[in-house]
Amino acid sequence: MVLKMKKFPLEKAFTLIEPGPVILVTTADNRGMNIMTISWSMVLDFTPRFALMTGPWNHSYKALKKTKECVLAIPGVDLAKKVIGIGTCSGAEVNKFDKFKLTPVEAKSVGAPLIAECLANIECRVVDYIAKHGIFVLDAVNAWVNLDRKERRTFHAVGDGTFVVDGRRLNFRKLMKEKIPSGACT
Amino acid sequence: MVLKMKKFPLEKAFTLIEPGPVILVTTADNRGMNIMTISWSMVLDFTPRFALMTGPWNHSYKALKKTKECVLAIPGVDLAKKVIGIGTCSGAEVNKFDKFKLTPVEAKSVGAPLIAECLANIECRVVDYIAKHGIFVLDAVNAWVNLDRKERRTFHAVGDGTFVVDGRRLNFRKLMKEKIPSGACT
Repeated sequence: MVLKMKKFPLEKAFTLIEPGPVILVTTADNRGMNIMTISWSMVLDFTPRFALMTGPWNHSYKALKKTKECVLAIPGVDLAKKVIGIGTCSGAEVNKFDKFKLTPVEAKSVGAPLIAECLANIECRVVDYIAKHGIFVLDAVNAWVNLDRKERRTFHAVGDGTFVVDGRRLNFRKLMKEKIPSGACT
Repeated sequence: MVLKMKKFPLEKAFTLIEPGPVILVTTADNRGMNIMTISWSMVLDFTPRFALMTGPWNHSYKALKKTKECVLAIPGVDLAKKVIGIGTCSGAEVNKFDKFKLTPVEAKSVGAPLIAECLANIECRVVDYIAKHGIFVLDAVNAWVNLDRKERRTFHAVGDGTFVVDGRRLNFRKLMKEKIPSGACT
């Protein structure tokens, strides 16, 4: 399989997370590669720095703590069923890349794999862990975007088993000129 | 003005934040009431507990730190221009409720006001502040939803001056049965 991922400017990577899509988080340790579905995440800085909330109940938690590396992969809405499947089984029992027919691709700077089928992938290092609240703080080191993909809509978990698909896009660039970080819309 | 807000079950309040909408955060201190626009927020627990990221560059920061109270108000997409306006001026210079013709309504348990025009309002108490990352940890104490409103779509900041409006809704409740917290879809 040819990797269709194209390098994406790191200073724009926060724009992949800020809208609040459901994301997939990959990890790799001596137990193998794994994927988890996460919707509790946010941007902490344009640098880009992200936060995500998870805990010991997730198989990926140990790998995150130990390797301090992961990839945030942004699925398109065409992958919704796989994303739900990934979120409702455990890496302790199944190889999720095999089960959901997803293609792991070697990342440039971290041991966790990119997911070839996703819209975008962000390689991250864990720079802090706030145990009291289960918050992992991540710094992105590389970002990749799949430009060949037709379906570009992401989707958002509501938390009650329903999901909202991206609708139309509004442009307020003129009104917000002074608030948009340089590099974000180049 | 008659308040059309109806009490919303607290155990479902996380479903208002989880999809990642742009939110308005109100505060009140001896300098008066204020509103800020935030899109860096996430759910931390179903209880419900939320995180939001802000810092001393925001006029509301002092009030959040001092009063330890705020309201998360979820705007419908019809309020988009006001929300952008609120995010591009400072409460140090203007009274945002006046300027944007929004109606503050007394909350039940916190000093910060609800916003009558919004889809929903969540009264919150600040229970922790992680200075290193600018993360406020909030516990919701009451939630209200405006059932009379026609426009129910929220919108999501991309971070480059564009915003994605809610599109259609997918239902995966059957596939996710065991993962949905009790109370979330009653």
